[in-house]
Amino acid sequence: MKREEVYNFSAGPSVLPEPVLEKAASELLNYRGTGMSVMEMSHRSSAFMDIFAETKAKMKAALKVPDTHEILFLQGGASLQFSMVPLNLCAEGDTADYAVTGNFANIAAKEAGKYCTVHVMASSEDTKFDRIPAQEELRLSAEAKYFYYCANNTIFGTAWNYVPETAAPLVCDMSSEILSHPVDVSRYGLIFAGAQKNMAPAGLTVVIIDRALAGHERAVTPLMMSYQRMIDKDSMYNTPPCYNIYMLGLVLDWLETQGGPEGMERIKHEKAKLVYDYLDESRLFRGCAWPDSRSDMNITFRTGDEALDAEFVKFSLANGLQNLKGHRVAGGMRASVYNAMPMAGVEKLVAIMKEFEVTHRV
Amino acid sequence: MKREEVYNFSAGPSVLPEPVLEKAASELLNYRGTGMSVMEMSHRSSAFMDIFAETKAKMKAALKVPDTHEILFLQGGASLQFSMVPLNLCAEGDTADYAVTGNFANIAAKEAGKYCTVHVMASSEDTKFDRIPAQEELRLSAEAKYFYYCANNTIFGTAWNYVPETAAPLVCDMSSEILSHPVDVSRYGLIFAGAQKNMAPAGLTVVIIDRALAGHERAVTPLMMSYQRMIDKDSMYNTPPCYNIYMLGLVLDWLETQGGPEGMERIKHEKAKLVYDYLDESRLFRGCAWPDSRSDMNITFRTGDEALDAEFVKFSLANGLQNLKGHRVAGGMRASVYNAMPMAGVEKLVAIMKEFEVTHRV
Repeated sequence: MKREEVYNFSAGPSVLPEPVLEKAASELLNYRGTGMSVMEMSHRSSAFMDIFAETKAKMKAALKVPDTHEILFLQGGASLQFSMVPLNLCAEGDTADYAVTGNFANIAAKEAGKYCTVHVMASSEDTKFDRIPAQEELRLSAEAKYFYYCANNTIFGTAWNYVPETAAPLVCDMSSEILSHPVDVSRYGLIFAGAQKNMAPAGLTVVIIDRALAGHERAVTPLMMSYQRMIDKDSMYNTPPCYNIYMLGLVLDWLETQGGPEGMERIKHEKAKLVYDYLDESRLFRGCAWPDSRSDMNITFRTGDEALDAEFVKFSLANGLQNLKGHRVAGGMRASVYNAMPMAGVEKLVAIMKEFEVTHRV
Repeated sequence: MKREEVYNFSAGPSVLPEPVLEKAASELLNYRGTGMSVMEMSHRSSAFMDIFAETKAKMKAALKVPDTHEILFLQGGASLQFSMVPLNLCAEGDTADYAVTGNFANIAAKEAGKYCTVHVMASSEDTKFDRIPAQEELRLSAEAKYFYYCANNTIFGTAWNYVPETAAPLVCDMSSEILSHPVDVSRYGLIFAGAQKNMAPAGLTVVIIDRALAGHERAVTPLMMSYQRMIDKDSMYNTPPCYNIYMLGLVLDWLETQGGPEGMERIKHEKAKLVYDYLDESRLFRGCAWPDSRSDMNITFRTGDEALDAEFVKFSLANGLQNLKGHRVAGGMRASVYNAMPMAGVEKLVAIMKEFEVTHRV
């Protein structure tokens, strides 16, 4: 199939902007007259150091990261952060507050339990993670070293549509929503995000950390898992995932053409509204998340009939819509509508859903 | 500059085979009719699962990995392995033997000291890491849980030209020599290697582990650092560095055209011999490593005069030879002659050295 015949709704790794891929392909054998691919460059070479510094500067500009915070380019995915956060931010016996609103927040809380006392201060597990707690439902502990939450729950299609008010520093997993809207970084102690949804190919994790929180890792912290060491070495204690960083730079260039996170926020609302408006009027499909907890990035829906869900997934595939099958722990369907998904893809999704509904209305 | 005007002697990330880069560029926007880039594929998609399985099978075939051993594709670089090895292979209070023959073995030994009793059973630090100890010099401890060594010391240009005989399982950092010669994997408990020298772009770490050694990690081991979990999940506990794995597959295809590790062993000897033979006859340059400890992958040399070294580096750069400056802790020059460095690059290096010697002989 040709690229224009396919819309890829994968939850991650996921679609990248076509101009970014075109630029990458054109530079792949020879980056700007260096005679080398970025993949072949020493991470200490001036050509790569420039790419690194420019990408970091673009990230800083896109999210208006204040000078109090450091941007790190790490490896290991968000899952390594699940351990790195408590190892660096808690001493043994300390307490941390965790909001368990989905699969990954749940894993993060369990992992932190190995290193500190975890206080699960809100959970929507009893209703299959279909909603985000309101501020007044958060049972915050006075002694918490930090408050942890996952801003967007990829599997269940919910998002925190507000920033929690807490005394403890906010630690936030923004993997599936980073760069899709402006963020007041000064309100956060630590933000982390796997790159493979809105930023770059899998293999890069971006961390934005208030420098005041670093430097307190406990003695058993592995060499590569000290935020302070990574700050001191500007993410180059060892060889960073260079090509992913280069790709992030290209994605940030493209993001700027879309108006940055501010422009993207408007576009993502438009794209998501198209699908949610249809879901609200459909007599076949319905959305899984509570309306006030809906994610613009991951739209979960179902017919209520597993066989019919499977038939729709098959029908969508035949029409070039890839990866609409929901995650195995959630079932149903999921359309991941990340930054790089064009409006045309969302329009086609709704058209296909309507076509399916006409022939399958019960 | 054009690619053909440049030879890149970087110690890592380093040169990749041109046919591999050409293939990658040609498939970058649309992988074999899927309408997607490999960078955009869900790691659970059938297209990517095929790439993953094929790459693993090619790796198994190239190194004749026995069925007792598992191949893992991880993140974090060799430096994460420095912690992962002791966390998984030692209980508190256990002893491990470390041969400290260079910078990275030194860091690995220090890191292991956080988790177990490290017995440095051989070191060449007093002579600036210019040689590898012989078997009879290894002061092995009877109770060691494993014997750790770094097969090729990138910075100092030395290599273990034999496989140590030990009672404890061998753990080996093969980052800068993997796939450059055949290895009897059955003699090793664990082999690991960062990809960015002989395998793929930076961001992938290949681990080959005897399954019998896994499953004993201590309780504080971070989620992502359990070998057993990674074996159980076939390296997909979380999203792996998909594109790097794809690139490794392409490199393994190319390696086969060169006769695999067997063919590469012959080629690497030929390439290295060209430089070492000249070093042995030169009246200006001399090799840094003891002859019986010389590495075929990283050839270190100097004139004995720092100003002259710097002048040679400048002269080589003007002639399209990149990254010949030695590592800052070693000084002098270093030519990294990994698998993808063509013979023509080595011939040009020797020609340029000769030209420089004629005009600068003291």
